[in-house]
Amino acid sequence: MNSSFDLKTYLEGRRKLVDEWLEENLPRPVGPHSLVIEAMRYSALSKGKRIRPILLMAAADAVGGDGTRFLPQASALECIHAYSLIHDDLPAMDDDDLRRGVPTCHKAFGEAMAILAGDALLNYAFEILSSPSHSKGLDPETVISVIGTIGHASGINGMVGGQAADVLMEGKEVDEETLRFIHVHKTGAIIKAAIKAGAILGGADPIQLERMEEFGYHLGLLFQIKDDLLDVEGDEKRLGKRTKKDAEKKKATYPALFGIERTKQMGQEILKEAIDALSIFGPEADALRSVANYVVRRSR
Amino acid sequence: MNSSFDLKTYLEGRRKLVDEWLEENLPRPVGPHSLVIEAMRYSALSKGKRIRPILLMAAADAVGGDGTRFLPQASALECIHAYSLIHDDLPAMDDDDLRRGVPTCHKAFGEAMAILAGDALLNYAFEILSSPSHSKGLDPETVISVIGTIGHASGINGMVGGQAADVLMEGKEVDEETLRFIHVHKTGAIIKAAIKAGAILGGADPIQLERMEEFGYHLGLLFQIKDDLLDVEGDEKRLGKRTKKDAEKKKATYPALFGIERTKQMGQEILKEAIDALSIFGPEADALRSVANYVVRRSR
Repeated sequence: MNSSFDLKTYLEGRRKLVDEWLEENLPRPVGPHSLVIEAMRYSALSKGKRIRPILLMAAADAVGGDGTRFLPQASALECIHAYSLIHDDLPAMDDDDLRRGVPTCHKAFGEAMAILAGDALLNYAFEILSSPSHSKGLDPETVISVIGTIGHASGINGMVGGQAADVLMEGKEVDEETLRFIHVHKTGAIIKAAIKAGAILGGADPIQLERMEEFGYHLGLLFQIKDDLLDVEGDEKRLGKRTKKDAEKKKATYPALFGIERTKQMGQEILKEAIDALSIFGPEADALRSVANYVVRRSR
Repeated sequence: MNSSFDLKTYLEGRRKLVDEWLEENLPRPVGPHSLVIEAMRYSALSKGKRIRPILLMAAADAVGGDGTRFLPQASALECIHAYSLIHDDLPAMDDDDLRRGVPTCHKAFGEAMAILAGDALLNYAFEILSSPSHSKGLDPETVISVIGTIGHASGINGMVGGQAADVLMEGKEVDEETLRFIHVHKTGAIIKAAIKAGAILGGADPIQLERMEEFGYHLGLLFQIKDDLLDVEGDEKRLGKRTKKDAEKKKATYPALFGIERTKQMGQEILKEAIDALSIFGPEADALRSVANYVVRRSR
């Protein structure tokens, strides 16, 4: 890997592109329903890492495409992420007051608006993905394939299924198989979909696509393992959200099942598998390699 | 109009097709998240009229297509409808205990599962619409156009926007313009989208499509006006849900703004406009005409 790759500048630049795109393309708060639009914008535009959009673009770059061409598709992923955070934070779910350092959506806008803002953001992702103006120059088959990839990952066989299992297993003895189910679905599926969608958009051949999916699978797992570790060891202020929630709620996590040290070791093993999956790619995949390393190192 | 058209048999037959399709194609309750799948199935398969799917198929028939070929797309609309009912019934929204004669989703499965089941059903609609196996033989451009049509109607510029306005205007003085905004968006948009999507799938030419959109607009308005009237005059048992809620919650409705008699008269006028929009079509649009009449006459 090219050690001169400047991850910080890269992440910052890409994050800014996503923020500007969302700022410009999210609905404007007018009409008798303007409050719910404010709630959508409040959550989607709040300070975040924009990792999922960045991964989509980086995967397109890695297979030889031009990632920034796919900013709309990348930003659609951020809408889905924002929706999932809003609904996860609701009183009936994780009941959280703080997210990204500011009050959660329902704390700021009330529960009804938060539920609807989440619904609207999920729906808006599909509006972006199917919009002719955002798909200019793309083959229609590619557009459908991306919608299918992202739709599958965010639904019952992906994120929603994982979140449901997570809620249902609270306080219960959970074996490794169930824990892996939760992790793979709740966080992993949409990370993997970001990589896969980026690869499809970038014009990956079947072998490239297979490697990208493998990379995405491991990266997704890594992401959730690190989230679990941060909940135990992380700094509340830096994270912008409450920590130690998992233990409090008796949630199924890797640290709870294997202990902190073994979990960190597993993280290193999975990181290696992720990096290995990229072996067929040259320096054009350095951003992906660098992001994978960052996922393990990050402190928020 | 062909007076021999047997609406009851027609509706019953089409309803059955949709029910069978959903029964067969909704996810099966297995895995650690099986409860949320049960909640999805509970709500989507509970007794309903399946009007939106039937309208999609009828519109395809009316423009010379074969409506039943588009059962998956039609059923996707029912998933969106079911999701909207689940979320509307939540304690933070309309707080209803009864729907279609049975306990609402959150009463049966708890709030967390109800929120997630709604999310999953909305998402599942887009999974169906983008699935290659459900789009066999369809032109990819048509598939994207249908996703865009339905996505626009169910989101912030359609159903979610209307529902948000409805919640926000509770207890407030509402003028006719705002009332129309709520009706056109909350219920009208998805009805219009059902008609438009059916027309697109059935291969409508631009003039047919324009007429269908006009018909759909009026039918959607008619639908919500009748819902308002049923809330005032309807039979709770027959409707399978609580009535007199609108007045109790000081909701913006046509009867509240114009009185019952004037509202009924307006319904007749809008029905006429809807039927007029179909003037270029022959007997192949009799089902649509008949459904429009039924919407005004229905008692549930």
